[in-house]
Amino acid sequence: MKASKTGEFALIDRIISEINKVKPGEWNSLVSGIGDDAAVIRSRSRYQVATTDCLVENVHFKKSFLDWNALGWKALAINLSDIAAMGGLPKYAVVSLAIPLNTDVEDVVRLYKGMLEAASESGTVIAGGNISRASEIAVHAAVIGEVPARGKVLLRSKAKKGDLIAVTGRLGAAAAGLRTLGGSLHPSRNDADILEKAFWYPQPRIDVGRILVKSGIHCGMDISDGLVADLGHILEMSRVGARIEAARVPVHPSVAVLGFEGLKLALTSGEDYELLFTGKKEAIEKVAAEACCPITIIGEITRGAGKLDVLDNDGKNIPFENGGWHHF
Amino acid sequence: MKASKTGEFALIDRIISEINKVKPGEWNSLVSGIGDDAAVIRSRSRYQVATTDCLVENVHFKKSFLDWNALGWKALAINLSDIAAMGGLPKYAVVSLAIPLNTDVEDVVRLYKGMLEAASESGTVIAGGNISRASEIAVHAAVIGEVPARGKVLLRSKAKKGDLIAVTGRLGAAAAGLRTLGGSLHPSRNDADILEKAFWYPQPRIDVGRILVKSGIHCGMDISDGLVADLGHILEMSRVGARIEAARVPVHPSVAVLGFEGLKLALTSGEDYELLFTGKKEAIEKVAAEACCPITIIGEITRGAGKLDVLDNDGKNIPFENGGWHHF
Repeated sequence: MKASKTGEFALIDRIISEINKVKPGEWNSLVSGIGDDAAVIRSRSRYQVATTDCLVENVHFKKSFLDWNALGWKALAINLSDIAAMGGLPKYAVVSLAIPLNTDVEDVVRLYKGMLEAASESGTVIAGGNISRASEIAVHAAVIGEVPARGKVLLRSKAKKGDLIAVTGRLGAAAAGLRTLGGSLHPSRNDADILEKAFWYPQPRIDVGRILVKSGIHCGMDISDGLVADLGHILEMSRVGARIEAARVPVHPSVAVLGFEGLKLALTSGEDYELLFTGKKEAIEKVAAEACCPITIIGEITRGAGKLDVLDNDGKNIPFENGGWHHF
Repeated sequence: MKASKTGEFALIDRIISEINKVKPGEWNSLVSGIGDDAAVIRSRSRYQVATTDCLVENVHFKKSFLDWNALGWKALAINLSDIAAMGGLPKYAVVSLAIPLNTDVEDVVRLYKGMLEAASESGTVIAGGNISRASEIAVHAAVIGEVPARGKVLLRSKAKKGDLIAVTGRLGAAAAGLRTLGGSLHPSRNDADILEKAFWYPQPRIDVGRILVKSGIHCGMDISDGLVADLGHILEMSRVGARIEAARVPVHPSVAVLGFEGLKLALTSGEDYELLFTGKKEAIEKVAAEACCPITIIGEITRGAGKLDVLDNDGKNIPFENGGWHHF
């Protein structure tokens, strides 16, 4: 069967099952493996988090609207966001770059400068890398970080019935930015700038991730596939359900002007790289008091295993044909 | 200027100079960065080594002779070899896979099985990964390992005048295997099997790397670009010269049958992933006594900065137009 038919998540499940067949002893050092935002590895008395992600031409961006500096920033930022989504502190990165032979050297330098900016803002060291030629541009990066202790980490499997569900920041801007860059959305000049920047320069929520862990939150992830799809991952791995109120979802102001279309973007579009987390009301209030970005409660975790209800103002279910953005 | 014109190494130099401009304080944790086989990072009182490398369709292999299991093995093995080339012990890996939509799921499973085999043989944990679609197959991996102490590591910059130069194993087989797979070389059936296996299943010299460090060797790297080109990296970074005797170069027996053409492959072709190192005679003899593979002394380090003489049986210089395999 083709990967396009199976889909990304079924393919990953198949790989996990192969891994489970062979795991030798040293795999005991793996506290949490494939299936979360980053892996947690015990190394003697310490815990590292490790992740890898990539940006590929014609999948994540088009050459027609490529900004090399932004590509460098974003390629590192999406990995830093995975570390943030574990409540970790990024330490260092290695970068594997694939570029066509006719790429301008100054463009590669711009890409590295963007990456260095993201590294510098987060205190991450770019330790090493690799360059290969290829027919399309692809930036693969891996980031290694630390978490303070085994239990001081955000996992997708830790949502509990009665937990409130909250998100950081405002949603929908990155996807609206992609549509603006692609020419299918025509916002005002001012909104266009804001949205395109949201697409190219996501801000990894490293500080908030650490505040979450410190405040006693155990369940969290970053929103890369879209709120509904990503919440779905939490429900599946925690074997719980959820109910969210659409009216409480913090739609980005430059997206809210699109009305229902904007709400749909905030609910189902990916790449905002905000954090989605669940926990007790008091813990979330503690987070809100400390975090430097808006923290919005949008619903709660319920008993119904895997069942997600998104309610409109009349308390009616909004149906979703496609829960979010899929890589296949 | 285009990357094709600058070449890989000048492009890397340009990137290093950009990095050097911005290095903030946290970069002090980077003991050795871009320019060696792997980066060395200090993490409190310990030292990690980190590397990333990739295999890209139409650059490193063709779909016409693609073996998915072998691709998985090799994609991890070339990274493990970089850890070995630092004298390190690999601990865990993250894998970023890019595949076309029409890829068969069973082929992806075969790829992971090959990778798991390489992981298992070396005691490496595959901690996490990422899958994206792309128009060409590309496997990017990053491996994190450990070295026992700051000084217990193999660097390209540590060759000293008077050091002897040695290599592990036999050379030239991987390149001859690639030519056999591509149809431009027609060895006997038996040799073809051996050579194709040498191309697809390189054996990372992790044990030897650790023996080198233990035996007091400080300068080493793996042969990925070709003996002459890689020795050139050592000469440049150590500011020394070298003289090697072609007759002493251990040409792989299935390649030696090609005569002078075989010697040329052993001298200039890449991807054998054997270790190249320099050190005092006694240290190398200690290594040879402990290592489970042949250790061959092929020459010595001289004063002449950057100058490499490859001498034939009459003591005459063999000229090289192209020192080895370049990625651009």
